[in-house]
Amino acid sequence: MTVNPSLEAYQPVDSGIVPRFAGISTFMRLPQCKPDEVDIALVGVPFDGGTTNRPGPRHGPREVRNQSTLMRRVHHHSGISPYDLVRVGDCGDSPINPINLMDALDKITGFYDEIRAGGAIPITAGGDHLISLPILRALGKDRPVGMIHFDAHSDTYDSFFGDNKFTHGTPFRRAIEEGVLDPKRTVQIGLRGAISDASNYDFAREVGIRMIFIEELVKRGPEDVMAEAREIAGGKPTYVSFDIDIIDPSMAPGTGTPEIGGILTREAQDLVRLLEGVDIIGADVVEVSPPFDLGGMTALAGATMMFELLCVTANAIATARGTAAAG
Amino acid sequence: MTVNPSLEAYQPVDSGIVPRFAGISTFMRLPQCKPDEVDIALVGVPFDGGTTNRPGPRHGPREVRNQSTLMRRVHHHSGISPYDLVRVGDCGDSPINPINLMDALDKITGFYDEIRAGGAIPITAGGDHLISLPILRALGKDRPVGMIHFDAHSDTYDSFFGDNKFTHGTPFRRAIEEGVLDPKRTVQIGLRGAISDASNYDFAREVGIRMIFIEELVKRGPEDVMAEAREIAGGKPTYVSFDIDIIDPSMAPGTGTPEIGGILTREAQDLVRLLEGVDIIGADVVEVSPPFDLGGMTALAGATMMFELLCVTANAIATARGTAAAG
Amino acid sequence: MTVNPSLEAYQPVDSGIVPRFAGISTFMRLPQCKPDEVDIALVGVPFDGGTTNRPGPRHGPREVRNQSTLMRRVHHHSGISPYDLVRVGDCGDSPINPINLMDALDKITGFYDEIRAGGAIPITAGGDHLISLPILRALGKDRPVGMIHFDAHSDTYDSFFGDNKFTHGTPFRRAIEEGVLDPKRTVQIGLRGAISDASNYDFAREVGIRMIFIEELVKRGPEDVMAEAREIAGGKPTYVSFDIDIIDPSMAPGTGTPEIGGILTREAQDLVRLLEGVDIIGADVVEVSPPFDLGGMTALAGATMMFELLCVTANAIATARGTAAAG
Amino acid sequence: MTVNPSLEAYQPVDSGIVPRFAGISTFMRLPQCKPDEVDIALVGVPFDGGTTNRPGPRHGPREVRNQSTLMRRVHHHSGISPYDLVRVGDCGDSPINPINLMDALDKITGFYDEIRAGGAIPITAGGDHLISLPILRALGKDRPVGMIHFDAHSDTYDSFFGDNKFTHGTPFRRAIEEGVLDPKRTVQIGLRGAISDASNYDFAREVGIRMIFIEELVKRGPEDVMAEAREIAGGKPTYVSFDIDIIDPSMAPGTGTPEIGGILTREAQDLVRLLEGVDIIGADVVEVSPPFDLGGMTALAGATMMFELLCVTANAIATARGTAAAG
Amino acid sequence: MTVNPSLEAYQPVDSGIVPRFAGISTFMRLPQCKPDEVDIALVGVPFDGGTTNRPGPRHGPREVRNQSTLMRRVHHHSGISPYDLVRVGDCGDSPINPINLMDALDKITGFYDEIRAGGAIPITAGGDHLISLPILRALGKDRPVGMIHFDAHSDTYDSFFGDNKFTHGTPFRRAIEEGVLDPKRTVQIGLRGAISDASNYDFAREVGIRMIFIEELVKRGPEDVMAEAREIAGGKPTYVSFDIDIIDPSMAPGTGTPEIGGILTREAQDLVRLLEGVDIIGADVVEVSPPFDLGGMTALAGATMMFELLCVTANAIATARGTAAAG
Amino acid sequence: MTVNPSLEAYQPVDSGIVPRFAGISTFMRLPQCKPDEVDIALVGVPFDGGTTNRPGPRHGPREVRNQSTLMRRVHHHSGISPYDLVRVGDCGDSPINPINLMDALDKITGFYDEIRAGGAIPITAGGDHLISLPILRALGKDRPVGMIHFDAHSDTYDSFFGDNKFTHGTPFRRAIEEGVLDPKRTVQIGLRGAISDASNYDFAREVGIRMIFIEELVKRGPEDVMAEAREIAGGKPTYVSFDIDIIDPSMAPGTGTPEIGGILTREAQDLVRLLEGVDIIGADVVEVSPPFDLGGMTALAGATMMFELLCVTANAIATARGTAAAG
Repeated sequence: MTVNPSLEAYQPVDSGIVPRFAGISTFMRLPQCKPDEVDIALVGVPFDGGTTNRPGPRHGPREVRNQSTLMRRVHHHSGISPYDLVRVGDCGDSPINPINLMDALDKITGFYDEIRAGGAIPITAGGDHLISLPILRALGKDRPVGMIHFDAHSDTYDSFFGDNKFTHGTPFRRAIEEGVLDPKRTVQIGLRGAISDASNYDFAREVGIRMIFIEELVKRGPEDVMAEAREIAGGKPTYVSFDIDIIDPSMAPGTGTPEIGGILTREAQDLVRLLEGVDIIGADVVEVSPPFDLGGMTALAGATMMFELLCVTANAIATARGTAAAG
Repeated sequence: MTVNPSLEAYQPVDSGIVPRFAGISTFMRLPQCKPDEVDIALVGVPFDGGTTNRPGPRHGPREVRNQSTLMRRVHHHSGISPYDLVRVGDCGDSPINPINLMDALDKITGFYDEIRAGGAIPITAGGDHLISLPILRALGKDRPVGMIHFDAHSDTYDSFFGDNKFTHGTPFRRAIEEGVLDPKRTVQIGLRGAISDASNYDFAREVGIRMIFIEELVKRGPEDVMAEAREIAGGKPTYVSFDIDIIDPSMAPGTGTPEIGGILTREAQDLVRLLEGVDIIGADVVEVSPPFDLGGMTALAGATMMFELLCVTANAIATARGTAAAG
Repeated sequence: MTVNPSLEAYQPVDSGIVPRFAGISTFMRLPQCKPDEVDIALVGVPFDGGTTNRPGPRHGPREVRNQSTLMRRVHHHSGISPYDLVRVGDCGDSPINPINLMDALDKITGFYDEIRAGGAIPITAGGDHLISLPILRALGKDRPVGMIHFDAHSDTYDSFFGDNKFTHGTPFRRAIEEGVLDPKRTVQIGLRGAISDASNYDFAREVGIRMIFIEELVKRGPEDVMAEAREIAGGKPTYVSFDIDIIDPSMAPGTGTPEIGGILTREAQDLVRLLEGVDIIGADVVEVSPPFDLGGMTALAGATMMFELLCVTANAIATARGTAAAG
Repeated sequence: MTVNPSLEAYQPVDSGIVPRFAGISTFMRLPQCKPDEVDIALVGVPFDGGTTNRPGPRHGPREVRNQSTLMRRVHHHSGISPYDLVRVGDCGDSPINPINLMDALDKITGFYDEIRAGGAIPITAGGDHLISLPILRALGKDRPVGMIHFDAHSDTYDSFFGDNKFTHGTPFRRAIEEGVLDPKRTVQIGLRGAISDASNYDFAREVGIRMIFIEELVKRGPEDVMAEAREIAGGKPTYVSFDIDIIDPSMAPGTGTPEIGGILTREAQDLVRLLEGVDIIGADVVEVSPPFDLGGMTALAGATMMFELLCVTANAIATARGTAAAG
Repeated sequence: MTVNPSLEAYQPVDSGIVPRFAGISTFMRLPQCKPDEVDIALVGVPFDGGTTNRPGPRHGPREVRNQSTLMRRVHHHSGISPYDLVRVGDCGDSPINPINLMDALDKITGFYDEIRAGGAIPITAGGDHLISLPILRALGKDRPVGMIHFDAHSDTYDSFFGDNKFTHGTPFRRAIEEGVLDPKRTVQIGLRGAISDASNYDFAREVGIRMIFIEELVKRGPEDVMAEAREIAGGKPTYVSFDIDIIDPSMAPGTGTPEIGGILTREAQDLVRLLEGVDIIGADVVEVSPPFDLGGMTALAGATMMFELLCVTANAIATARGTAAAG
Repeated sequence: MTVNPSLEAYQPVDSGIVPRFAGISTFMRLPQCKPDEVDIALVGVPFDGGTTNRPGPRHGPREVRNQSTLMRRVHHHSGISPYDLVRVGDCGDSPINPINLMDALDKITGFYDEIRAGGAIPITAGGDHLISLPILRALGKDRPVGMIHFDAHSDTYDSFFGDNKFTHGTPFRRAIEEGVLDPKRTVQIGLRGAISDASNYDFAREVGIRMIFIEELVKRGPEDVMAEAREIAGGKPTYVSFDIDIIDPSMAPGTGTPEIGGILTREAQDLVRLLEGVDIIGADVVEVSPPFDLGGMTALAGATMMFELLCVTANAIATARGTAAAG
């Protein structure tokens, strides 16, 4: 295999020489880099202070790194070879604070401000879903962004346990209120599970979020649903948020709010592959909770979804630059 | 959220105030009640003395209670909100005897006699499948009832280990022989797995049970199959028995007789939702075996299937009373 | 067995009638009571917001309740039969807030104010070790109390992650600063594990806490060490705090800050039995973290240590009243 | 049930008399036999010396034997009753050498030479996928055989870690080079997962292997794909190799190279059942790795796939002899 | 190594040739034999119908066989090499009945009648502790035997759940009542754990059983305690019953009635080695419950304790014959 | 805390700023360094090709790194603060070859040649015990070294599976034969477990290795035994090899050849602390096998033993330099 010399410094460790179980675990076995050295920054946000029930996603980035050592270089279906297209690196973990929620949110936004300043597109391993809020605060600072959101839950609740506004059930209501997320360009895919009150979805409906429940998703299929999603995104800057709990708990047990009846991982892969053409300005895979995982299965799913997101994002960059592979 | 004052005493603990991990576990976080206080009695039968191979369902009710603390109030798809329609409570566990099978059967029937006398419809967490027999003895005492039976196995064997007639492989043959179950109004859905002898299904066929194997179920789909099932039930009193092993062992590993190639949980949910219109006089979810479970996954599936059963049952009651929600 | 009629309402479920796997789990299978109905209140504090590393103790009370269904009535060694001496009940869980640390601390103190007002001595299942602070705020409100503290860690750090003063590594420095804990009447037993800085123990030493490291404990043995501890407590009101991580992680793996080289459970039992004669005004068993537990082993150890604490506390009350058993 | 007297010595233990948890575990609870006594030899090859990443399949045969005690006698869908058609037995494990790869390969070939000399068709529980090479050396000694190969991976790499030619990623390239496998009569079904280099599939394409990726498989469905597979096999001697990792890792987590997005076990069963009419001269189920398994789930899937393979193979023999059941 | 020709047929598989993970699992990798072929019969009793709480020991014999493949030939401390002294074999499992307790007890007694008739000394893997009763009925038929009993529990309760006399908490009261066990020659070692009622030990005391609690055992040490035990046994026929729950649950978690504060495995080994000189007529290792085990740890402890028992028993036979090794 | 400026680049990440669950895992959270930059090189050898039974130690270094993030800076008992005494870093993993044993041995020796050339003392996380051979080939190249060897097994077998000389049961016989290990200055501590043949220890005895079995160790205690060990080492260059299986399998279950009856972790810590004064030229912690581990317990024990070894080694260097702390 011949690697473009300008990309030589951004290649994963070769598993034909160093076995996958050897060496220090970084995302995809990539070199550790600064955000201003790469086109795509793989980063972790080990924070779960917004969790209302079962904790653990703070351990997500480490285990996703571990399982990501199983990833390879070239997508078998799309043919995309991200490391031949763009510079990708492991840019480490965001600073956080496990004891102080508001401090953590500020630290995370600061970290993503730097990434954005460095010119990289971040693909993040969470952390609970509250982390999408400080990320959006950085990425949507100048103008609200759109979002394609894969999840079992809408995460547009108002508050919990009294008047606590910042939890993993509320990030997108906050992001909309703060003007960093455009609800009209937001689509939520895979929603399911009983709700606490019939009014739970009212806010999302009122602000114009398009909610696609699992029943509709299964009936219409990924292609049709994603065609609509791409239309909603509208070719403008769009964030992609992938909550691992959209996947069935048998395939992603390590998560805080499992709902049976989810999608299969192969359906999840279809969905993400169909992001082709979307102007992705950042993405995350959240709610991987290793203490509740079984045999690393959820972290493996999370790592693979990161790789799928990496492929479509790398290809989008290359396409914009006119250097994409034939695929 | 506004709750009907007459139902205020029968509401689950509010997870927006008390987190789901807090407090003593009852079914669905409901109050502990007597059978004569409620319309629907959620109960446990912690008995697995009928088990021919891997034991454990005696621990089912406790773990189903634990996982049921993840359940919420309003069904996302049907819109049914059971606690706004009828009185529901946790009526505790049936007395049983882990050492003496015949004594256990009598105690269980006595417990269900009381529930029936109290006017409540029981939705039960087992226990191995033998418990359906003493339940049917109480519920079918006056006249044989029909049954919609979801299971990998027909459970119509004659005897085991010599002339032992009461095992989890024999309850429905006994119920038919005793006249508490009407085989002509019985349908078994999801059967699969090799059998011990080619004659194993002869009894079921001869008495007129309709057996729908997994291959037929997958081919026809839940809607078509359940239309036939409802027709077989015929609008008359019908028991619903849900053996967790109808679900694939990857999604419900905690069970005694796993058979690969099962249905997905979302297919299971479809099947149960399509019970709408059936005159449900009782239901059970059996064979959840915590010692063989992984991460509580099977108990979570069991708890969710109980919630699905609760929704259709509550709606049926409300419909009969003319107080059902629009859905 | 004959039970004192005045205590009949405060007896555990009889396992010779209802097997241990049956029924709803309460502490020791006791009735659910209000704090003003009992002499000793078994309670849970499902809070782990003070955790600096691995979370999970929020799930502690529920799993300790589950495992406590294995407990019996009469101590085999001391002969103490607590339910024949005093009124004991499960008084439920303290309100907490998993998202808002300061709110949680206030809620917990409020809960213990009520218990104290009701006249009960609380024996608590945590929760991370920070919960001892709001408990001490209630129990030590009028005057500083003494403490016999079993733990691998001193928990007298000053702050973490900047200036965050309230974590599970800081409760006892705060309690001393706030005047609710008397350092001169405080002894810490079982300390071990490397420290972050040579100065870590300076505060404890300066304020006069007696620290007994594991090496000294093993060398002198429980009897000698506890004689000293009782002397330090000095016959005055004393709180007992038992961090499960004093026990070796092979015997208590489900905890957030495991340190190899700990004490055996039988040594832990010896230590607690030797509290006889101490004026116990409250006790806790903290840092049981079910997501990191193996087969419920740690929750079982926690439940058994609660039973040991219950025995010595009940006997102390009875002794004070002149109604203690011969033993 | 009446058994053909000539087959009486080759019947599984009757689970209606001896429960499935009792007795010494053999494949399918069959008697231990010599290869020249049976028509179909169930054997194990406990070798994983070809593994490039996560080890463990050396423990496969033992755990597959354990889980196979759950298997019964008659296929519920095809009606095939293998033990009523042919002589089947557990012929033990091949000798191997865990320390010396080349010695192990020779020992395995020697073992299969004996099986072939004895006239039995071997159905093997591996072991990693390298074991298919020494098996093919024995079975394809006289002429290259065809192969229907179910797998997530093509296993036609050239070498690893320098010039190491014998790994579980290379068996079929070696078999083709050695002339024991006919690439034109080889079809690979279920391929998926990223590859290390865009050229990875070049060899397979150049020699004429037909590769059917998961996306094509899901789109066309088992019936269509297997019709093509049978045509490729062409009615001539064909080996069937089933790598458990074709199945989704949620359903077969115990394997060394998991790839999310796999097929369901019921799809795997469909594929194998559609081997009807193929001239099966041997089959294997490989890459079951108990140390990475969860609750025996993967070994159960492996045992069931062996039973499915046994049914089609037994029926093929009986058909050839004119003694097949009506089915 | 040179094996006595008359013992050649009774040797374990050589792990220097066939690795320990290979082949079909028998006790100690020994040949399968009939009871009349051997001096010591290793057998299983896969029955747990006497279990009052957590089931599972029915799976004990299989997993003890699996873990026993790790055993070797010569005791490192005593130098005893049992397979060089006597004929030992795996004589399979007793017939049992998981559904019918009384039938099971009869079948077990019948099986041991045959073993005794064959002249072999049985060393048994249980099963729950009730199995000791039918074994004693066979071995003590002619005259009551003595017993050295290692256990956390006395197992001399009278009845459970009403008037059920046959449970794993009652075998030794029954055996004494039936005249097959001599209480004056019975010693119980390692008792601990709270009791249900202060009168629980009354029966044992009244009939003259010597009970040595864990506190006494730890204080006096194995040598002193076993000297007393040997004296109680008095050089007359003595049964040895080893309940795995004497060992601490951290070292033997897979058991139904765990009590923290148990003995270490090395202390257990000391105790059994000190049986030297006792006239052992049979022994068992019971209450190994694989569904509650962790990583096979308890089954490994059970298998090793069987090996320890095998060594002292083989040596006793050889000593009696005058053929014992120097040691 | 004030750090010596020359050591500033060799400090672990501060857990008071970056929580232990955050960031990329290196040994002890140290910087990644080259061997010639440090005084002590922490390295991994992810190789288990010498394993005769249960594989997995190839995954050891990664999981030991993960658990080592729980380690702190200053030893609580000795007061040694290694990072204030010498330069320590994570020097990565040795190249290995999982498919080719002889190639792997050469690669490992080459790696340690470089470390030695760089002037660092290596402390290694294995890997199976065969890795000690290629390490000794590098460290003992000029003259045979002494060894203090903690292990359940002597590892001085001759060959396995025919004439295979290089396994994890043979390293020290090979090292002695090759003249890199001095048997007269070698002591083995903690041996236990049955042996395959009475002659197994003959070689060790004949060449003059001092073997201290567990029974002697427990009887004499760590202080006395280690005094003898230090005398055997004789103040000359000595290698320390710590096989995790010296620890009881309840405390270190993740290992390939578990033997019940082992030492407690606190005893293991005592033993290593008593290495003070030994001229340590290298050390290893081997046979940590994550696929067989439970909850990371064994990797935590391995990481802590590495920290204990680091402390005594750092202090020895500082003492030699005259810069040791007061302790």
